[in-house]
Amino acid sequence: MTRRSGRGGRRPGSPDTRGQILEAARTEFARSGFGGTTIRTVAAAAAVDPALVHHYFGSKQQLFEAVIDPPADPRAIVAPMLDLPREEMGEALVRQFLALWDGPPGHRARVLMTTAVTDPTTGALLREFVLMRAVHPVLAAVATPRRERDLRAGLITSQLMGLALARYVLAFPELAKPTADRLVHAIAPTIQRYLTGEV
Amino acid sequence: MTRRSGRGGRRPGSPDTRGQILEAARTEFARSGFGGTTIRTVAAAAAVDPALVHHYFGSKQQLFEAVIDPPADPRAIVAPMLDLPREEMGEALVRQFLALWDGPPGHRARVLMTTAVTDPTTGALLREFVLMRAVHPVLAAVATPRRERDLRAGLITSQLMGLALARYVLAFPELAKPTADRLVHAIAPTIQRYLTGEV
Repeated sequence: MTRRSGRGGRRPGSPDTRGQILEAARTEFARSGFGGTTIRTVAAAAAVDPALVHHYFGSKQQLFEAVIDPPADPRAIVAPMLDLPREEMGEALVRQFLALWDGPPGHRARVLMTTAVTDPTTGALLREFVLMRAVHPVLAAVATPRRERDLRAGLITSQLMGLALARYVLAFPELAKPTADRLVHAIAPTIQRYLTGEV
Repeated sequence: MTRRSGRGGRRPGSPDTRGQILEAARTEFARSGFGGTTIRTVAAAAAVDPALVHHYFGSKQQLFEAVIDPPADPRAIVAPMLDLPREEMGEALVRQFLALWDGPPGHRARVLMTTAVTDPTTGALLREFVLMRAVHPVLAAVATPRRERDLRAGLITSQLMGLALARYVLAFPELAKPTADRLVHAIAPTIQRYLTGEV
């Protein structure tokens, strides 16, 4: 798949080189995960010299952070729903989550999840984005007692991440085919119970 | 991390060599995914010549199948619950699922999930194991109308896989700390609704 190195025919550092490298890195990380991607495979996919990748981005870890940086600001995404009546928040959270994955940040969110399963640093980043910055503010808004927040946040995260895993990453047809509306209808009561119901 | 090759000091093909290679492969696939693992890195981790890995297991794909082969027979796992009253099946399914992951097959299940996110072949295998061989027989046992089975199977799979992802693969403390009983209590109503309730 990757083009072999050799300096002949490589593009010089044009204004768009950085963007080309970033796009190639995005594809490589999504396909091969963090462990399976190297500066060299990214350089080959972008048809540039590996030294240029180092020049623009530094290490593989820094390149990765540039790729995922960040899929979206989770706090900005949940902010509009914090004034809703509490019994509507479950549905709003599922709807916003699917809109994020179906929109432009979805590709970067997929890279983040794909990489997180083999790279603990990224796993911690995923937890920070989803659980700490998106789910916890919603729990705070519905006045969840502090001692229940961790469990409820974990339950909500498990359902939302499992949905993203099956629909967008693994693309199981049972979850990839239904419309977002159909899935919101089916899953909203689960998230609502994890937010405010008996667990 | 990996020891460099060179024939000096390599172990000869002893009766346990196959087992050592398998153990090394398990660790490598879990850490680096399918794309990040090679016959060479497995051989290095097992301190054997790569030719021995080929000799015992053939290709990387065949080595991978030997590692995950299979985490457990899903049909055998769900068989005992098929005679339960239908309103108890949600709880039984969550309980059996957690018992599988907490038991000896859990390590192989983790390899399967870690690899599936970057390798479509493994993704299809994961769908076959979880969705086709475990969830669908339970749906058949509760006499789910045929036209609803795909959506319900997808919903159940999304919650169970998300639970496994967060608790066992990413090890988010919010889901790794609670006991299995506590999680069964919280999640059983979700699975029960996806099985027999309004979706």
